[in-house]
Amino acid sequence: MIRLNNRQLDELRPVKITVDVNKHAEGSVLIEVGDTKVICTATVEERVPPFLKGQGKGWITAEYAMLPRATHTRNQREANRGKLSGRTMEIQRLIGRALRSVVNLEALGERTITLDCDVIQADGGTRTTAITGAFVALAIAVHKLNAANAFRVYPITDFLASTSVGIVDDTLMVDLNYEEDVKAAVDMNVVLTGGGQYVEVQGTGEEATFSRQQLNDLLQLAEAGIGQLIAIQRQTLGEQAARIERTEMA
Amino acid sequence: MIRLNNRQLDELRPVKITVDVNKHAEGSVLIEVGDTKVICTATVEERVPPFLKGQGKGWITAEYAMLPRATHTRNQREANRGKLSGRTMEIQRLIGRALRSVVNLEALGERTITLDCDVIQADGGTRTTAITGAFVALAIAVHKLNAANAFRVYPITDFLASTSVGIVDDTLMVDLNYEEDVKAAVDMNVVLTGGGQYVEVQGTGEEATFSRQQLNDLLQLAEAGIGQLIAIQRQTLGEQAARIERTEMA
Amino acid sequence: MIRLNNRQLDELRPVKITVDVNKHAEGSVLIEVGDTKVICTATVEERVPPFLKGQGKGWITAEYAMLPRATHTRNQREANRGKLSGRTMEIQRLIGRALRSVVNLEALGERTITLDCDVIQADGGTRTTAITGAFVALAIAVHKLNAANAFRVYPITDFLASTSVGIVDDTLMVDLNYEEDVKAAVDMNVVLTGGGQYVEVQGTGEEATFSRQQLNDLLQLAEAGIGQLIAIQRQTLGEQAARIERTEMA
Amino acid sequence: MIRLNNRQLDELRPVKITVDVNKHAEGSVLIEVGDTKVICTATVEERVPPFLKGQGKGWITAEYAMLPRATHTRNQREANRGKLSGRTMEIQRLIGRALRSVVNLEALGERTITLDCDVIQADGGTRTTAITGAFVALAIAVHKLNAANAFRVYPITDFLASTSVGIVDDTLMVDLNYEEDVKAAVDMNVVLTGGGQYVEVQGTGEEATFSRQQLNDLLQLAEAGIGQLIAIQRQTLGEQAARIERTEMA
Amino acid sequence: MIRLNNRQLDELRPVKITVDVNKHAEGSVLIEVGDTKVICTATVEERVPPFLKGQGKGWITAEYAMLPRATHTRNQREANRGKLSGRTMEIQRLIGRALRSVVNLEALGERTITLDCDVIQADGGTRTTAITGAFVALAIAVHKLNAANAFRVYPITDFLASTSVGIVDDTLMVDLNYEEDVKAAVDMNVVLTGGGQYVEVQGTGEEATFSRQQLNDLLQLAEAGIGQLIAIQRQTLGEQAARIERTEMA
Amino acid sequence: MIRLNNRQLDELRPVKITVDVNKHAEGSVLIEVGDTKVICTATVEERVPPFLKGQGKGWITAEYAMLPRATHTRNQREANRGKLSGRTMEIQRLIGRALRSVVNLEALGERTITLDCDVIQADGGTRTTAITGAFVALAIAVHKLNAANAFRVYPITDFLASTSVGIVDDTLMVDLNYEEDVKAAVDMNVVLTGGGQYVEVQGTGEEATFSRQQLNDLLQLAEAGIGQLIAIQRQTLGEQAARIERTEMA
Repeated sequence: MIRLNNRQLDELRPVKITVDVNKHAEGSVLIEVGDTKVICTATVEERVPPFLKGQGKGWITAEYAMLPRATHTRNQREANRGKLSGRTMEIQRLIGRALRSVVNLEALGERTITLDCDVIQADGGTRTTAITGAFVALAIAVHKLNAANAFRVYPITDFLASTSVGIVDDTLMVDLNYEEDVKAAVDMNVVLTGGGQYVEVQGTGEEATFSRQQLNDLLQLAEAGIGQLIAIQRQTLGEQAARIERTEMA
Repeated sequence: MIRLNNRQLDELRPVKITVDVNKHAEGSVLIEVGDTKVICTATVEERVPPFLKGQGKGWITAEYAMLPRATHTRNQREANRGKLSGRTMEIQRLIGRALRSVVNLEALGERTITLDCDVIQADGGTRTTAITGAFVALAIAVHKLNAANAFRVYPITDFLASTSVGIVDDTLMVDLNYEEDVKAAVDMNVVLTGGGQYVEVQGTGEEATFSRQQLNDLLQLAEAGIGQLIAIQRQTLGEQAARIERTEMA
Repeated sequence: MIRLNNRQLDELRPVKITVDVNKHAEGSVLIEVGDTKVICTATVEERVPPFLKGQGKGWITAEYAMLPRATHTRNQREANRGKLSGRTMEIQRLIGRALRSVVNLEALGERTITLDCDVIQADGGTRTTAITGAFVALAIAVHKLNAANAFRVYPITDFLASTSVGIVDDTLMVDLNYEEDVKAAVDMNVVLTGGGQYVEVQGTGEEATFSRQQLNDLLQLAEAGIGQLIAIQRQTLGEQAARIERTEMA
Repeated sequence: MIRLNNRQLDELRPVKITVDVNKHAEGSVLIEVGDTKVICTATVEERVPPFLKGQGKGWITAEYAMLPRATHTRNQREANRGKLSGRTMEIQRLIGRALRSVVNLEALGERTITLDCDVIQADGGTRTTAITGAFVALAIAVHKLNAANAFRVYPITDFLASTSVGIVDDTLMVDLNYEEDVKAAVDMNVVLTGGGQYVEVQGTGEEATFSRQQLNDLLQLAEAGIGQLIAIQRQTLGEQAARIERTEMA
Repeated sequence: MIRLNNRQLDELRPVKITVDVNKHAEGSVLIEVGDTKVICTATVEERVPPFLKGQGKGWITAEYAMLPRATHTRNQREANRGKLSGRTMEIQRLIGRALRSVVNLEALGERTITLDCDVIQADGGTRTTAITGAFVALAIAVHKLNAANAFRVYPITDFLASTSVGIVDDTLMVDLNYEEDVKAAVDMNVVLTGGGQYVEVQGTGEEATFSRQQLNDLLQLAEAGIGQLIAIQRQTLGEQAARIERTEMA
Repeated sequence: MIRLNNRQLDELRPVKITVDVNKHAEGSVLIEVGDTKVICTATVEERVPPFLKGQGKGWITAEYAMLPRATHTRNQREANRGKLSGRTMEIQRLIGRALRSVVNLEALGERTITLDCDVIQADGGTRTTAITGAFVALAIAVHKLNAANAFRVYPITDFLASTSVGIVDDTLMVDLNYEEDVKAAVDMNVVLTGGGQYVEVQGTGEEATFSRQQLNDLLQLAEAGIGQLIAIQRQTLGEQAARIERTEMA
């Protein structure tokens, strides 16, 4: 089993996070993991969804989409079909839920931060890349709010990143690209905090199954990979990363 | 932490599966897990979706819905809203994917079996109950096809059942009812085969996280619970269960 | 013309009404007329539609649906098609309108009762069965509100039930099952009150016509059949039936 | 009870049918019944809906709509709401079904005639006016096809017209205008053939009921009114009317 | 190049404007330009869209539709397709924008006037005919409001009319009918005020281009044609036209 | 009237076109005009829309969208609203129509090229920027097809670019940014070929009008600006530009 560019089984593809790629958004990044490229923007609005009104709490939500030609063959726009696919809904629910696990919604106050994750080019792992990038865009937006004295308590409680692991031709590996993903018998997405806590585990056998031992080994691979992603997030955020760490310690 | 009816932390609610509840469907059951009640029907159609045409393979798909008053307060029908919610899509994709993992689609031949899972009354665990019931409805439909000599190779390769586990007030427990589910910091759905292989693990912290150790303990609880569900499926299917076992051994 | 199970032309199929089949709904029944089975739930909400706001009046409305495999061949869910069919809309408008004719909306006060009629299994006469069952679910919900002193004047003014009549192979008959319905040249649905007053008559020749005399004979058959249905409703409601009769007399 | 313009209880409003109002349609009329004005066009297409393919039969279908300001206050266009209302669906199903009862679909051959009934101005009775007008547009289109030797057997078997009757302030009357319709306790639409046969009876009490005797008296009023409408149709169609009569006699 | 009925290249088709064709609308006309016939109604509502609330300004908006058989072959209703076509949206945005250019929205006050333009029969130039007719319907509605002392300043500031020009077989001509429009290499719609000011120019080459000189010549043709249309509007409005002229002079 | 960065009235904002920004698409560019940034991809598919089947002709079509946070405040995704706005439809129809004017569809053969124009960041002029960028993406895709000997006749017949002109505070200027666009009384989009021929002129006064002289002066400004854009396209395409010029001369 030889991976593209002689990549090792436990080796991530090259990761690059460019910040402030959008002049309007309160936070924005372009994240590249191999040939997967996602623009993540954070929009701050001083209102909350109806179900939260008057509770003094904020909300974090996410939307996900692909440009029609992000993929090998062109996909019809969901706006033309008139509705979101089940896949899109599943992914954006996942991103929002994951981010909320490291945000103190009371500390955020009555505001909503929407993370838009738009896949410019896809090569596998778009949802995990979106989570990793969206966290950075969120951190930038929160940092700006904090600089404007919006909070009494800093609302981000920990780092958050995600990667995929899977079993391809009976081989366990991390960060599958599109070609590997298509061949995978088992596909698992893992989201962890900076402190190594689990936020999400979604392991799926498509017309296949996996043993408890394989599950354990996959988690091991994911933990190592996500550790590296969080190190890159820290480096990208610089000063702002330090602020999050102080919250963790508090 | 005292559960309703003095239920133990590792104790399932009472499970009852009534077969042949619909005179039109090729397979049908009413499954009751505590106060959660789901009608599962299997419909056999001698055609496959466009993406499988001419490949000699079959397809298993599922749809999921709740009656408007299955829940404490009435929900608007999705037909009135004009579209399925993200939650519904996520669940029906899960049910279909899980069932396909124990079906030999080549052996099934160019036919589609659709599992309709309609929740008549909800009290937590509707998706795991739907999977457990849908497997039985599927097995009945396949058995009828087999009796009519539709197959050269028996297409069901193993049993399949599902339950939920979760962490409520720092306590790990199996088969959460609605009240427990609402309070749960971590919620995990597990789908296993009769042979104990993993098909799906979906663990989620909503505004919370969990450790690797907790993850392991939750899986332990789920394995025990699903073992009991599969025993009930075997008993319900009787003769037909034996046929599935012979396939497993082959 | 021999009917299934040697049924006479003026004989209803066996009717069975099981109450309180749903633990959440304010009123609920499972009504079975032959092989046609409908779950009817009544939901009470302390609000009225916009067009009634501030008038001190209540509202009764109904929704109707079939499970996909309620019928011989599977039907696509209306939620998937993204809209209700004309048939569904016609039926649910009929059910709501019929029920409102025996409810004093001023006495009901500013609340809405929604009757959900979900066909679990269909064998002809689903709309008339839904009306007959929905009345009972409504009566149960109203009785509970009354027990809680919600009303000054009891809002149900009479019983209400419905059956179909038709002409099959030039023969007039009551309560058509699916097979008869398909062959019918004329199909008529009649809704009557306990006092024998007409609420709805919908007689239709599909690629056929009928004479004034035939119309009269069909009405005669319907009156007799509905009389029996109302007797069964009375028996089912017991004590509560007496309360409705006192209102009628008042 | 004094009606507008001293109209008698059994007196229709003035009826005017103008033919050939559209240069593109195969048949077209503008029908005016009092202030209710409907354009009816018949479109002939040499194809049938999927469910009739290859059976050698034709199809008659209808669509109904109102211009937004046909009514006292402006209504939102159904195209903007993105779906037809239940009322619209109910009406267009009724018009199509009624027309089919006087057409020999085998004689029509594998073609579809679509009757578009667009209400330009509404003042009560739009659905019955649409039926009466649509029959004339249909007859014109069929006459043209016949002139082109499209048929071996003339496909229209009888005349067809419709009016409303109702009970307003305990008074029975024919052909209700909008003001009367709003006050009506009972509203009934009747469709009859030239030979006096019944095609449709739809009697409805909205928050009211009616006796068997009242039902009989309403039918009497409707029969007389429809007789007059059919006389006007005959006069309008002239030569073409004679052709339909010959079919009836055959 | 010979035009139908020996029409000259710079000659409009016969124009006829019939006022007050709808008894409910505040203003209404039937405008006929050759065989193109459009009903335009003006509806006055004492409210403004959300984006204008509380600004003391009014709004003018337009909707456009064709009856299904306005055209040579029948078109599916947009209500059935569940959405407006791009063409319809483009046209109704154009009509509304054009009318607003001759209305003083502050003087109008917090009310909305909706112009519904429904094409009864189409033979080219439906959007320009709609604009010309809608202006007259608007003027009638405004005149009625003015008679009721609704305004301090008269809100219509000038006349407004529109026609099409185009290049067919290398020949420039005004007011294209359907047959000419289909063959046109260049199609241009022009909207002018009574004072000869430009409001809209939309020139389009479909798989063709045009020179600056041709553009100038087309505008010359359009200016002459629109001058004649405005003369007809003046004549139609009579007394009311004088009122608009006084506003222009003020 | 001082423009941002001391820009002159007849001066375009800085223009940058980066090619091959998408590894999957047959042609792709990122075009930046000031702060307006649009990704344009060209997708080649070997099929044509139904209305062109079997005619030996190809088709060029375009789709246009904005990322939700391309603008100052976040816009709801059109996929969530379930339909395209009128503005989007108008723009994508314009882009497709404009590109077709410089493509020989017969020479293209039975294939469709879809230009997806996705606005990553908006600062005025997104539709004109999209046209200018889409032409380059189209040229790249056509060049690749040509290199693979797909054509007998080279299908691109000329260059194509577009800019906006407008009147702001009575001052005429080219290439309006967002701030200028909002204040503009008149807004005009012009599309020209490399040979200076007109393809589209869309001039609009929103609650304002303009004289014939102003129209002429605006066109003068647009011609000069588009000349510069075409020079940049030539430079970007290099060798490929020469090929288009040879077609023009042929």
